[in-house]
Amino acid sequence: MRPTARQVAELAGVSVATVSYVLSGRDRPVGAETRQRVLDAARQLGYTPNQAARSLRKRRTQRVCLVLSTLGGVPSDERLATDLHEMADARGYSVITLAVYSEARAKAAVDVLRGGIADGALVNVVGDHLTRDMLNDLAAAGLPLVVLSNEAGLEGCDVVRTPQAEACEEAVEHLLAQGRRRIAFLAHRHELHREQPEGRLLGYTRALDRHGVTERIITTGADDRVAAYQTATELLRSPDRPDAIFAASDRAAISAIWAARDAGLRVPGDVAVVGAGNIDEGLITNPQLSTVGPLRHDYTDVARLLFDRLQAEEAPPAREIVRSWTYLRRGSS
Amino acid sequence: MRPTARQVAELAGVSVATVSYVLSGRDRPVGAETRQRVLDAARQLGYTPNQAARSLRKRRTQRVCLVLSTLGGVPSDERLATDLHEMADARGYSVITLAVYSEARAKAAVDVLRGGIADGALVNVVGDHLTRDMLNDLAAAGLPLVVLSNEAGLEGCDVVRTPQAEACEEAVEHLLAQGRRRIAFLAHRHELHREQPEGRLLGYTRALDRHGVTERIITTGADDRVAAYQTATELLRSPDRPDAIFAASDRAAISAIWAARDAGLRVPGDVAVVGAGNIDEGLITNPQLSTVGPLRHDYTDVARLLFDRLQAEEAPPAREIVRSWTYLRRGSS
Repeated sequence: MRPTARQVAELAGVSVATVSYVLSGRDRPVGAETRQRVLDAARQLGYTPNQAARSLRKRRTQRVCLVLSTLGGVPSDERLATDLHEMADARGYSVITLAVYSEARAKAAVDVLRGGIADGALVNVVGDHLTRDMLNDLAAAGLPLVVLSNEAGLEGCDVVRTPQAEACEEAVEHLLAQGRRRIAFLAHRHELHREQPEGRLLGYTRALDRHGVTERIITTGADDRVAAYQTATELLRSPDRPDAIFAASDRAAISAIWAARDAGLRVPGDVAVVGAGNIDEGLITNPQLSTVGPLRHDYTDVARLLFDRLQAEEAPPAREIVRSWTYLRRGSS
Repeated sequence: MRPTARQVAELAGVSVATVSYVLSGRDRPVGAETRQRVLDAARQLGYTPNQAARSLRKRRTQRVCLVLSTLGGVPSDERLATDLHEMADARGYSVITLAVYSEARAKAAVDVLRGGIADGALVNVVGDHLTRDMLNDLAAAGLPLVVLSNEAGLEGCDVVRTPQAEACEEAVEHLLAQGRRRIAFLAHRHELHREQPEGRLLGYTRALDRHGVTERIITTGADDRVAAYQTATELLRSPDRPDAIFAASDRAAISAIWAARDAGLRVPGDVAVVGAGNIDEGLITNPQLSTVGPLRHDYTDVARLLFDRLQAEEAPPAREIVRSWTYLRRGSS
């Protein structure tokens, strides 16, 4: 007769639930010593968890959770959501979405995820509210997790990197090579809250540093089309207007093109405009929008990481995907 | 000594859980006869539910669910989400979002909501997947529900109406009064799938009917900025180009302005453009975008309906809010 989980529990001196937690590799944190006792007992008895039962346990909710940092309006988030939903549809999973835009929301999201609302989560946190420690705790608690982040030190989860600084640096280098020197940067608010510049802003400052350009024209505006239009209008109507605008989002860059045209300026003659993100809309502006971003928008590989993790017999080793960015020169620069 | 729920249960011959379901007015469907037995027993014993305990039961999850019909990109959905999240923040609730864009997703959403993922739901379904019957069943099962819909026959929930046909009719009347006769309509896909025209499309056809204009130029494009640009470009470069474009979304209308400018046409001289939705971005286009939509974007009253319902002692009577639309003539028409 095959050994049962109850026999393992008795031998290890723990509850059946603890045996289940340890051998499924998820659900709850279990102390290292207890874990070892369970593993030893299972080995001694030749116990392997019943596959059907395990599969039931794993498919506790048939839901995955998408954690985003905004309440909408970010085209790449929409693409990510679309690809995740498509893959979830094909596998019979539901998708629930959580927005984390404050510290309180981050704590609530952790509670909700720990509470077992979903079998795993895909996390795209560009801000700082959902910290590395919070994510590592969730992963350690056994939640299958895929995180889009450039932060170091994420453990026990799959990580999707999007290094952006190099492509942004290349874009600004190109503007400098055209002789432009007053290059404004329209930032996302969260980019200005960091202690050190990262990503897009880092690329901007690096290029200017290398060329000895000391002037920095950095302002918000990338989060919102209307704010970007207003900011760009102010900049472009000032006596010492910039000769280039590098916006941290394509949406803001498109607003900057509107603002330039309405100010009677030629793009790129009087002012060059470069965006970030490579959204399709950049192809219907006039001139077409130069941008930095991924060559193609496809998050299928990212979504697959999560479902691989959900369906794995054992918690798989952490994997990493790097999604590279490119400077795409079009008509506006 | 105060009577207890157990005593009520014994007298009624039901479980304590059933007493709790009946007296909290939610959670599970209970047969009419059983419900009456419980109510009679409670009255006979002078039982009133313990307030603290009721409040705990009511705050089962401290979550509310937002059900949308798309995966993003709809500005009014973003405003709705923002106002719901703000109010939830202030009341210590989490918000989870579900997207329902297919029949399978609708069924899954019903299962998830029946499964108790949230204490109540705010539903904005513009398509047909989440049917009136599904919503009525959820309400009958005791789920506090607020539904944004113009459909008749929704019961047991609060309903938010947005009659749009009249304002759209007025906009098209205005275009006709300018002598325009070739008026194209850029529709959302879901608008073309209905048996009878409704809302925006209904306003368009009604105005043309009244003026004896038999030509209908109806095409998709309102769901997507790029598709709208391409559609508008095709229309405007054809030999019998329209002299006005009425787009069912402001995003599409803004693309139509780009398309007109790129085709060398003056707006509104050669072609008038009217959008729908009244998003802020319409104020930064050149010319400013004429539109039909709400005068202000504030869904606080809508979100409040849900929290009122969550916090009510008894399931409140169904309420209705009407959010009226207006034709806002600006520079593009």
